[in-house]
Amino acid sequence: MFKTIEWKNGQVRFLDQRQLPLKEYFIETNDFRVVAQAISNLGLRGAPLIGVGAAYGMALGAQEGLKIHLDRFYSFLESVDQTLRSTRPTAVNLFWALDRMKKIWKDAEKQGVSPKKCAEELIEEAITIHNEDIETNQNIAKQGASLVEDQDAILTHCNAGALACSAWGTALGVIYWAALQERKKLTVYADETRPLLQGARLTTFELLKNHIPVTLITDNMAGYLMAQGRVHKIIVGADRIAANGDTANKIGTYSLAVLASHHHIPFYIAAPLSTIDIHIASGEDIPIEEREPEEVFHFGESRTAPQGIEAWNPAFDVTPHHLIRAIITEKGILYPPFVEKLTLLKQNE
Amino acid sequence: MFKTIEWKNGQVRFLDQRQLPLKEYFIETNDFRVVAQAISNLGLRGAPLIGVGAAYGMALGAQEGLKIHLDRFYSFLESVDQTLRSTRPTAVNLFWALDRMKKIWKDAEKQGVSPKKCAEELIEEAITIHNEDIETNQNIAKQGASLVEDQDAILTHCNAGALACSAWGTALGVIYWAALQERKKLTVYADETRPLLQGARLTTFELLKNHIPVTLITDNMAGYLMAQGRVHKIIVGADRIAANGDTANKIGTYSLAVLASHHHIPFYIAAPLSTIDIHIASGEDIPIEEREPEEVFHFGESRTAPQGIEAWNPAFDVTPHHLIRAIITEKGILYPPFVEKLTLLKQNE
Repeated sequence: MFKTIEWKNGQVRFLDQRQLPLKEYFIETNDFRVVAQAISNLGLRGAPLIGVGAAYGMALGAQEGLKIHLDRFYSFLESVDQTLRSTRPTAVNLFWALDRMKKIWKDAEKQGVSPKKCAEELIEEAITIHNEDIETNQNIAKQGASLVEDQDAILTHCNAGALACSAWGTALGVIYWAALQERKKLTVYADETRPLLQGARLTTFELLKNHIPVTLITDNMAGYLMAQGRVHKIIVGADRIAANGDTANKIGTYSLAVLASHHHIPFYIAAPLSTIDIHIASGEDIPIEEREPEEVFHFGESRTAPQGIEAWNPAFDVTPHHLIRAIITEKGILYPPFVEKLTLLKQNE
Repeated sequence: MFKTIEWKNGQVRFLDQRQLPLKEYFIETNDFRVVAQAISNLGLRGAPLIGVGAAYGMALGAQEGLKIHLDRFYSFLESVDQTLRSTRPTAVNLFWALDRMKKIWKDAEKQGVSPKKCAEELIEEAITIHNEDIETNQNIAKQGASLVEDQDAILTHCNAGALACSAWGTALGVIYWAALQERKKLTVYADETRPLLQGARLTTFELLKNHIPVTLITDNMAGYLMAQGRVHKIIVGADRIAANGDTANKIGTYSLAVLASHHHIPFYIAAPLSTIDIHIASGEDIPIEEREPEEVFHFGESRTAPQGIEAWNPAFDVTPHHLIRAIITEKGILYPPFVEKLTLLKQNE
């Protein structure tokens, strides 16, 4: 697996995913603003990776604070935190990672720790979050692979792969583990995932890199594919899971879940515990990012629609828990009812 | 309404819909091969318009036969008919129109009618088919508008508008009649309809021309839009309706019908009787065109996916009759069970 992000000589190096699949272009930066912008514009995307990216962003901010704002180090960290927090509203891993980082620098501030020492601790915590994410993904992959049978045809949506995480991925991690470690023969279908085509651009790209054959479909073909009995399982990632199991994920996930239910196809969410937001009772309260209409009017650089019309562009939707067969986490596979199991796992996290 | 196709000085003049919405480019030709090619490559598209285009193609063929192949006029017509028939497999209006034309030239051949007279009759029949289509669409529009209430929000898929027909359109005809003739205030949502984006390119274009506000969504947003209670009715066209009411239409229609059923939203088909294929008992027997994978990998000139992967590209899907609330025809609105009503109407056609 290639490295989507790494900490290298006091800089963050990450793959600019907007350029895929045409170019594999890496950005190296010591500026947390570049990281924040990459999260906003989807150069750095995928809920787990957004968490890791934000943690490294804080580490860069601490370094900058040491160099330039030593007199107001902690208030500078506060502003770095705010900048990173305001990049995207839906994926909870962003806030989860920034909360972990904030605990470090708030404690340091309270205890009168020197800025230098605090910056070191923040860098260390970011690397820990990164390493934990790799381990977490591997555990999700292993857990989920037990659900996958030889000869299964699996449909996935958007990109919940190595590109969305530090390694392995969540939904694609399950496919990788089943196919590469357990040698199960799989058929994989990828929804192209308009408007930003993460399925066409990213999921096919990384499956190809890992020598797993993949068939691309447009989003509106999924129902007919299911009707023909050509899909045995659907596995997708998550951007935020409410306490009751309602799951926000890339726009189109909800339609897939309804279609899966109609065709009696198991519909699985694969996500780390960091994606679970126990403070939100149900999906109704998950904030859903609405992005620029321009994304709907365009296909890459090409404009598809005339000037003078409107577009609606929610980046995510919410799938109610009753349409979810199970949630695959690094601590095990959870079946409904979810609320008690999710609460217990989060308490023991 | 602008003219998508017309017979003009012994030529066919039609709008090349591949160029929309960026260019309004008309092709004028006396060559039936140009018409056949335009049907194949979707320059001329939409089930009713394909029928009209094929009829004019036969008329052009008859003119060419008169000029160049007078010695083998009727066998030349046979080859013209074959060329036009082989353009696209799913829309039955193609075969319906060519069957009407064939009856003329087969009768002429049997009765020893002169090629000149036969060519005149074929031109006349093509113009009749064209004029009937305009009247038919207007009647569908009027019939369907009775189902539409003031303040309705209507979702449509692909393009079943004036661009798909000679005028008015089927699904969009209903919207035009309700909005423009009956002055009902409507909200219209258009699915962009990948891979060829007929919704983004054509439906928004013609609604805009007719001053009806429209909001574009990507196909995968439809379910979430419904879940929010923002869709009151779904109206789409049809490429072929089997005797039992099962309906082939643009890929993605089936998913919408399942989603509509899940959300208790009425799902309507608007189509002329020429779209009904009474010789086919159910949707299972409707031939579904599979097109080049390249359409899924591209939009226009932009490639979206890496080389080395597969794609599946069915141009249509089949919606089972039990998911259809009613079929809106020029002879009235049909409710289930459809089979007897469709059979009766076709017998009296």
